Amino acid sequence: MYRVGIDLGGTNIAVGVVNEDYEIISYTTVPTEARRPAEQVIATMAQAVNTVLEQAGIRVEDCAGIGVGAPGTCDEKNGVVYRSYSMDWTDLPLANMLKEYFPVPVLVDNDANCAALAEVKAGAAKGRENIVLVTLGTGIGSGIVLGGRIYSGLKGNGAEMGHMMLQFEGSRPCFCGRRGCWDAYASATALVHQAEEAAREHPESLLSRLDKIDGKSVFDAADRGDVTAQVVLERYCRYLAVGISNIVNALAPEMILVGGGISRQGDRILTPVREYVAQNCFDKRPEALPVIAPAQMGNEAGIVGAAALAE
Amino acid sequence: MYRVGIDLGGTNIAVGVVNEDYEIISYTTVPTEARRPAEQVIATMAQAVNTVLEQAGIRVEDCAGIGVGAPGTCDEKNGVVYRSYSMDWTDLPLANMLKEYFPVPVLVDNDANCAALAEVKAGAAKGRENIVLVTLGTGIGSGIVLGGRIYSGLKGNGAEMGHMMLQFEGSRPCFCGRRGCWDAYASATALVHQAEEAAREHPESLLSRLDKIDGKSVFDAADRGDVTAQVVLERYCRYLAVGISNIVNALAPEMILVGGGISRQGDRILTPVREYVAQNCFDKRPEALPVIAPAQMGNEAGIVGAAALAE
Repeated sequence: MYRVGIDLGGTNIAVGVVNEDYEIISYTTVPTEARRPAEQVIATMAQAVNTVLEQAGIRVEDCAGIGVGAPGTCDEKNGVVYRSYSMDWTDLPLANMLKEYFPVPVLVDNDANCAALAEVKAGAAKGRENIVLVTLGTGIGSGIVLGGRIYSGLKGNGAEMGHMMLQFEGSRPCFCGRRGCWDAYASATALVHQAEEAAREHPESLLSRLDKIDGKSVFDAADRGDVTAQVVLERYCRYLAVGISNIVNALAPEMILVGGGISRQGDRILTPVREYVAQNCFDKRPEALPVIAPAQMGNEAGIVGAAALAE
Repeated sequence: MYRVGIDLGGTNIAVGVVNEDYEIISYTTVPTEARRPAEQVIATMAQAVNTVLEQAGIRVEDCAGIGVGAPGTCDEKNGVVYRSYSMDWTDLPLANMLKEYFPVPVLVDNDANCAALAEVKAGAAKGRENIVLVTLGTGIGSGIVLGGRIYSGLKGNGAEMGHMMLQFEGSRPCFCGRRGCWDAYASATALVHQAEEAAREHPESLLSRLDKIDGKSVFDAADRGDVTAQVVLERYCRYLAVGISNIVNALAPEMILVGGGISRQGDRILTPVREYVAQNCFDKRPEALPVIAPAQMGNEAGIVGAAALAE
């Protein structure tokens, strides 16, 4: 049985057909043009689905269903997008609207949740039951899979683990309105902010001589022996580790995956995280420690996870 | 169908038979004498089970099973207590040992998890699917019920929500070895510590004239107009609220119950908590906010929750 996965982003809509092994066998991408009326965006999604079905040489009836990973809060039971800021949608009955084009089940869930499910179906967490995926990007995204299924919480309001407060009424403002959220300390954006601050404080540093600081340039400067960059990274890894320990203590998943561009640094950031967790989490028995590893699905996560919604 | 619940504590073993409505229809309690060999403790448990069966006028075969809530980390699949500090047990096959006395299923889980399950079966969360129970006592205990069942995490290492770090490398040491855990700011013990500190700083306060400060006396002093006590309580409620917001953001349960002696203050502590959560949690839609309420099961939670393990 095949499945169709739609990764709906604010810029592009990526659509693919996956086979039973969750391999993408056909693929297309089209611009979202998110400011259009929702009906038009959904018509474009439907066209793209037809394109990938044709490319794969199958009919939609050969598919268990169509899944959509949407950027926002979703009511997965009813296939409704409660609120998506990037799409400017409120209470949109996305599944029902797309069902008008195709006589198969249409499922909708949050994109970060889909990414976590993709890792369980085909990625670093294949075959695991209880995992958390943490994605370090502009903010910290998170998805929880429990018992092999996405856990979305009350009214889709689940798994915003980046908004656990790490620093009680701390000084760093978070975009959610509080101060001291993990997001404000351990997202990729936060790393860049910390590096920029350090560069200003240390005009002698290599960091301060860069035209522009991004996540990768902090690692590069540290590699070239810049002590300022090394101190920034050490502190950043500690922030990351404390937040991951909080997840371990709160939920004790089997596995915590770290995604996003920074996760390509692999053990360089994950080794200090693992060490901190082993020494500091509540239950220190080695067998009670989760595996902490990089996410594997990369850009495919959205399509594969959305497709996996259709069971 | 009846069920037997055993609430195993470091001091006493409380045992009861519950009916289909989870009402306790017979009850006994015996000293644990925890330093004895485990075999003797279990023999005492078996005797107490026979006592409550006799009192109820039923045979063990009339029961769906026997559940034990144990103070420690449990492998609920195999009925093993991995580690209990209060019992000094390691890897004890409690279910199998108790099964030698009774020809019915014997189930074992952590006592805080059982208390959460009791609230779902017969208490404040009756009929709910996804709830978190937070108990404010010597420390902060927590139990998670998801999909109507206890969520125990990897190797029973789940739901130590008191050990989410609230204050990054904060000044308050936690008994788990870290600094800055929620437990060190919002347990009943933490409230007393904060009141003692405030009493030393404010010798003019009513608090400082008390012979001994306990949780209740802080509330009493505030009632009598003591500004020092009022400030302590306001700060304490904020600590409580931030930790509960972290649970909302991480898991979005339908309901968060607060238990322990302090929860008898009811709305006095829960109203500021609800206000903070409504204003500060990530998803502020009213329908996405959990119900925050006092736990109801009190001393019966242990027996009823343990009994509910037997399905």
